Amino acid sequence: MDIRALFFDVFGTVVDWRESIAGQVAQFNSDQGTAFEPYALADAWRGRYYAGMAPVLAGRREFAKLETLHLENLRAVLAEMPAIELSDDQLDEMNGFWRRLRPWPDSVAGLARLKHRHILATMSNGNIAMMVAIAKFAGLPWDVILGAEPAGTYKPDPRCYITGTEILGLRPQECIMVAAHNKDLVAAAALGFRTAFIRRPTEHGPGQSGDLEPEREFDYVAGSMEELASRMGC
Amino acid sequence: MDIRALFFDVFGTVVDWRESIAGQVAQFNSDQGTAFEPYALADAWRGRYYAGMAPVLAGRREFAKLETLHLENLRAVLAEMPAIELSDDQLDEMNGFWRRLRPWPDSVAGLARLKHRHILATMSNGNIAMMVAIAKFAGLPWDVILGAEPAGTYKPDPRCYITGTEILGLRPQECIMVAAHNKDLVAAAALGFRTAFIRRPTEHGPGQSGDLEPEREFDYVAGSMEELASRMGC
Repeated sequence: MDIRALFFDVFGTVVDWRESIAGQVAQFNSDQGTAFEPYALADAWRGRYYAGMAPVLAGRREFAKLETLHLENLRAVLAEMPAIELSDDQLDEMNGFWRRLRPWPDSVAGLARLKHRHILATMSNGNIAMMVAIAKFAGLPWDVILGAEPAGTYKPDPRCYITGTEILGLRPQECIMVAAHNKDLVAAAALGFRTAFIRRPTEHGPGQSGDLEPEREFDYVAGSMEELASRMGC
Repeated sequence: MDIRALFFDVFGTVVDWRESIAGQVAQFNSDQGTAFEPYALADAWRGRYYAGMAPVLAGRREFAKLETLHLENLRAVLAEMPAIELSDDQLDEMNGFWRRLRPWPDSVAGLARLKHRHILATMSNGNIAMMVAIAKFAGLPWDVILGAEPAGTYKPDPRCYITGTEILGLRPQECIMVAAHNKDLVAAAALGFRTAFIRRPTEHGPGQSGDLEPEREFDYVAGSMEELASRMGC
């Protein structure tokens, strides 16, 4: 394999969105006197993730940035809690929680090792401004931000992955898709990408039921970014 | 000023394209037995830069990546040297010289300081793959690659600068355009950007006649990226 670039899923694969959102919700409660159940809110919000993108993926809605969908999803979640009324500023503040996501403990060190030999690209559904903010907050050393926004659609639409390779002038065979999610890797593999499955068994909390193990044969399987770096000889 | 992002011109402002291209031409001569005059070729090649982009800027040609224009420009330069016939592979190799440009001595240290407080974005006419390659080669710590390619046109078309701010979700007033070229800064200032002029009096060699000094009042004037960082309190 002559690998030039690694394409990374970010939410769940590189950063621990659930603990990060829940922690910020708890802080919001302290600051604002609200009484959200932190994990329940994080899970309900993320629970609308795929439904929010579905109309775009189905071609029924023009592309909208993920942060726009996140805000709509938050409003929908809160609408099911009739006692809670937040101002637009408060909603924007909560939406910004997704810009401050902590990396998994191995992410920064693993990425730093992989970066010496390879181009590190994001291949996330998050919009570019969001990816930049998360990278600054978490210290993620990306070389380039690719993903949904440059393609004008969302993963797993093939155009996301292919637009990324075209921007870099690479063939899919020269790229590894790195993700903690089988669906993402299967979509990329179908286009010729190499694949790396990272185990993140607590992304969805202690009771996680999906994506605990690879469901296909991927090129790499690792328990951390550091382990991936070691397996790749970095 | 509440500055969130710095947008950088790259060729000439951050990297010394002329010495880097000339050095690689000299090496090419050694390796291939050619007899190009290194600085003359570098200057003639870069001399076609604006003419190459002009049809795109005038709307007479669909957007083509800068590396495509560079290759066309190289062919045009060599066509004026009838004794020299290079293969397509050799032309591609020479075109790749632009991916290996050395930073000015102050660039990496200055950018590292500025990066602690600000988003560092490229706002170059170079395409994304080229910017990524240069960053890896020169050790430039960009947070995000913006510029011509996301906008589908070239500076100084306002769409380049504005597309960059839209991608980041910022107002031009929250961004500083950093360049060694008056024209670039004047174009950005007209859109509301803050401006920083970096003196690069030898970009075009010892006989440089233009862009030796700022021709307008810019927000910052500095002799190096380190000086800019100091002036900005970074």
